[in-house]
Amino acid sequence: MPFESIPGGVTAPQGFLAGATYCGIKSGGRDLTVILSEVPGVVAAVFTKNKVHAAPVAVDRRHLTQSGGRARAFVVNSGNANACTGEQGLDDAEEMARLVGERFGCTTAEVLVASTGVIGVRLPIEKVRAGVQRIQLSREGGHEAALGIMTTDTRPKEIALAFDLDGHRAVIAGIAKGSGMIHPNMGTMLAFITSDAAVSPTFLAEALRRSVGRSFNMVTVDGDTSTNDTAAVLVNGQAGNEPIEAGSLAAAVFQEGLDRVATYLAQEIARDGEGASKFIEVRVSGARDENDARLAARAIAGSSLTKAAVYGSDPNWGRILCAAGYSGAEVDQSRADVTVGKVALMRGGEILPFDKARASAALGGPDVLLAVDLHLGEGEAVAWGCDLTEQYVKINAEYTT
Amino acid sequence: MPFESIPGGVTAPQGFLAGATYCGIKSGGRDLTVILSEVPGVVAAVFTKNKVHAAPVAVDRRHLTQSGGRARAFVVNSGNANACTGEQGLDDAEEMARLVGERFGCTTAEVLVASTGVIGVRLPIEKVRAGVQRIQLSREGGHEAALGIMTTDTRPKEIALAFDLDGHRAVIAGIAKGSGMIHPNMGTMLAFITSDAAVSPTFLAEALRRSVGRSFNMVTVDGDTSTNDTAAVLVNGQAGNEPIEAGSLAAAVFQEGLDRVATYLAQEIARDGEGASKFIEVRVSGARDENDARLAARAIAGSSLTKAAVYGSDPNWGRILCAAGYSGAEVDQSRADVTVGKVALMRGGEILPFDKARASAALGGPDVLLAVDLHLGEGEAVAWGCDLTEQYVKINAEYTT
Repeated sequence: MPFESIPGGVTAPQGFLAGATYCGIKSGGRDLTVILSEVPGVVAAVFTKNKVHAAPVAVDRRHLTQSGGRARAFVVNSGNANACTGEQGLDDAEEMARLVGERFGCTTAEVLVASTGVIGVRLPIEKVRAGVQRIQLSREGGHEAALGIMTTDTRPKEIALAFDLDGHRAVIAGIAKGSGMIHPNMGTMLAFITSDAAVSPTFLAEALRRSVGRSFNMVTVDGDTSTNDTAAVLVNGQAGNEPIEAGSLAAAVFQEGLDRVATYLAQEIARDGEGASKFIEVRVSGARDENDARLAARAIAGSSLTKAAVYGSDPNWGRILCAAGYSGAEVDQSRADVTVGKVALMRGGEILPFDKARASAALGGPDVLLAVDLHLGEGEAVAWGCDLTEQYVKINAEYTT
Repeated sequence: MPFESIPGGVTAPQGFLAGATYCGIKSGGRDLTVILSEVPGVVAAVFTKNKVHAAPVAVDRRHLTQSGGRARAFVVNSGNANACTGEQGLDDAEEMARLVGERFGCTTAEVLVASTGVIGVRLPIEKVRAGVQRIQLSREGGHEAALGIMTTDTRPKEIALAFDLDGHRAVIAGIAKGSGMIHPNMGTMLAFITSDAAVSPTFLAEALRRSVGRSFNMVTVDGDTSTNDTAAVLVNGQAGNEPIEAGSLAAAVFQEGLDRVATYLAQEIARDGEGASKFIEVRVSGARDENDARLAARAIAGSSLTKAAVYGSDPNWGRILCAAGYSGAEVDQSRADVTVGKVALMRGGEILPFDKARASAALGGPDVLLAVDLHLGEGEAVAWGCDLTEQYVKINAEYTT
């Protein structure tokens, strides 16, 4: 295996420290997290496409420009999203970065900020100030960081992979948080990836974009795109390899590692979706092109009717093809095949005689596979989601008041 | 009032007959409906944009071309969608039209067919054949028709409006069915509108398209676009007016009547959404243009998080603006206002101090108004939906098996 799973989370790569502390933003548990590279690194990030975005997203975009794509640290608070907070929110996010820069010896622009939690409430910056003074970072702090960014995630999400890079041992690692809030607002998706590989800024940005397209962008829990979504990768070159440029063999290896980390975290987010009782993987093949395959896969994974049918172990083939049909992808209903688990339900757009008990059983386990072959081309994609349960409604109907 | 609500449903306009019968497609209740104009009329229809569409949709498109936009009758069965039924399904839909044409003295192409119910099961055409022989049409059959097209709608949806058209008394009327199936598959939207006005084919098609854009296309129950959605209007000229051409005063009056009928039916569909406990009206103003306003209004009405928050009477302002932000409409978060009922929650993208009990009360009734002013232009739109309840999940998680 060229990639070996190792412990340690985001501090498994050389030269990374992390820690988390409780500073009183949430009602309990760690709510302030810092991940730090001992030396300046190269950073890339992608943010929510929502036109309504939180203050940290605006501040991070500015920092990426100011620093020329270099960074030392991520600082993340949970319990408050610092969204819909106006000019004050921007000042607070900037202050949060400045505090971390002062404490750990880097510029404000070298710190990226992220927030998740309740929106429309001012960030208690004095608590953040005290927290940043108090926080302890260490080489063993990776797991702390995975815990510190959680809101109502039911479990931490972390991974670290060791691999060979031009004869140097390198590590790529990541943590993520998914959907779930004590005061339900929006299920913010945050992911922070670290690596000790040396990577050129251009290729890093390209690799992250490509990877996110195949991983985090293929996860849907409820179709609502948050104001705070952020995925960022920080690499510090401590593995000793020559900086990776696009097109090289090392680029392919690094891309593979990044894809594995991002895909694992994306799947974990789907598994831990609000109220989820089942994990759904949707495989679309035979689409006109990759973009069409992604549209169809995401539409199927996001269809409320399909999600509810999976919850009820109902082999409701029609909902699956129907969702592909409205996804925007090209669909010829006289060609499409639909399979649930290993049970073929439709061929060429017509229902096959199938064993309903077997089909229902294929939907009965905790992991459900839905596959559609459109028979129109070579486009393939995989999307992940979860079932729609009464529990989801309960979680999201609770009062913020 | 230029428009007067009158009884009689789709047979209130002169020269229309209707009836419904039970022929054994559903497990009980009327499942075959015919609406007939005594004289040939002008017809216009819009169909699902889903690339996966049911056999009747394909047959109707062909009939509209063959007949040059003239028609005598609608025939509708409930209990079987005749979708994903391949070539056989097309033959069955065509046969259904032919049977009605033979019984009531018109050509096959003058009959439009619609089906709603379980998908992937062959239409029992011999039952339809017996039903068409047995069905009795009358001038009083409008309400029967409203009942006959229902599946698990909890109530019939019908309206008739009388109005003056160039000195002639005219009537426009409609019935619709919404989301809800005994064997849940897809919440097919069907609407049939009749009028005794004389209308030119070109203007009728234009008027229907415009009206559907403001009414049925602004309803969302669960974001899943059915394979069978159909809205059709049949006018027979019995009111005695000169055929209405675009741009005339009569055109404006007819458009208004059509809009009122379609809007009423669209709202009724939202009110009767699967599992719904509350009706939601979303008003977006100040959008860059009308299209942006529609995108934003539909996204808010369709947001699972917003729908669940309404269910729980949770004034969760952020979800509302967040949905506008990802709708594709231009949004400047520093300008947007959000109001729930009469309670202003946000101004210029910032949370206002508001009375939470009052805001929650504004979400507590059966009718909830959510309003967003984007302050970017003159675009306005209204969308309708319903809350997301545990009951929706229960209905849609049941076995088809």
